Amino acid sequence: MLRVGMAIFTEQGFSSTGIEAVLRQVQVPKGSFYHYFASKEAFGQEVLKGYAAYFARKLDHWFLARDVPPLERVWNFVQDAKAGMTKYDFRRGCLVGNLGQEVLVLPESFRQQLEAVLLDWQGRLALCLAEAVRDGTLRADIDCDAQAAFFWIGWEGAVLRARLAQDVLPLDIFIASYLAGITR
Amino acid sequence: MLRVGMAIFTEQGFSSTGIEAVLRQVQVPKGSFYHYFASKEAFGQEVLKGYAAYFARKLDHWFLARDVPPLERVWNFVQDAKAGMTKYDFRRGCLVGNLGQEVLVLPESFRQQLEAVLLDWQGRLALCLAEAVRDGTLRADIDCDAQAAFFWIGWEGAVLRARLAQDVLPLDIFIASYLAGITR
Repeated sequence: MLRVGMAIFTEQGFSSTGIEAVLRQVQVPKGSFYHYFASKEAFGQEVLKGYAAYFARKLDHWFLARDVPPLERVWNFVQDAKAGMTKYDFRRGCLVGNLGQEVLVLPESFRQQLEAVLLDWQGRLALCLAEAVRDGTLRADIDCDAQAAFFWIGWEGAVLRARLAQDVLPLDIFIASYLAGITR
Repeated sequence: MLRVGMAIFTEQGFSSTGIEAVLRQVQVPKGSFYHYFASKEAFGQEVLKGYAAYFARKLDHWFLARDVPPLERVWNFVQDAKAGMTKYDFRRGCLVGNLGQEVLVLPESFRQQLEAVLLDWQGRLALCLAEAVRDGTLRADIDCDAQAAFFWIGWEGAVLRARLAQDVLPLDIFIASYLAGITR
């Protein structure tokens, strides 16, 4: 149920999706749904938690690849994301970006949860950038936290634009300009 | 009716907004609505057209300010956007970003219209960046089109994040890092 929720919410967002659409796909009656989740809100939060855990594992896989130079790890993460978006015909974006766009019509609890997830991603990237400073690829005066924040701010825009353009080009422009900007 | 549509769609998106919500605010009966617009889709497209025209005038105001150095014009545009978002308590984002996020559940016509609007903004910014190359602020090897594309890709992410954080900080981080990246 969480897996189907993740897929549907990532495609079409939370507020315009009825619980019925999820239940139809998993063939579970409505009564059983409310046995597991108190509300659509509670279900959405569990889906977001599951997505955050999945994405954290993905980031660890790419950002902690000790045998790859740090900035190449970031580049590799983007190549993987490009392959993922292409695989789903640009139907799926980033669940955090989708829900973030809907923040005004979502319960307040989502807002804090989404911001916390983005700060977690920021921390993971900042560690990777700090390695690039230590090995001399990045100048010592680079603010790794600010640059990691800049990455995820722009990233959500790049994913949004790739879905709109139905093309990986926005992701290519984003990562090329981002890396050129910090290494120039 | 278009003005109210712009406000509501910019706050809560298109698909989760019923025409009734718009009609309630302008106190127009449903029959009159369908006298002016063939459908909610046609109405949404007119709202988007109106927004694009409004935003183009705004960009001209900032990006064509001949007495201001080109990169300062871009900075000024962002300061103005910060004031605008603060004024509406971070309830309003960018209509193009909001609709862009919903692209999968919108009619195909929206997708092309949204992409065209973003390319128009990109062209306007590229001209401003080209002025910065001519006056020597930017290096001659800067690709103004690619950098303008990068700006709007990141911009939609920054507006999304500012709404999520209910703070101008993401816009500050975005513009500081963007300008540092192209001038470094």
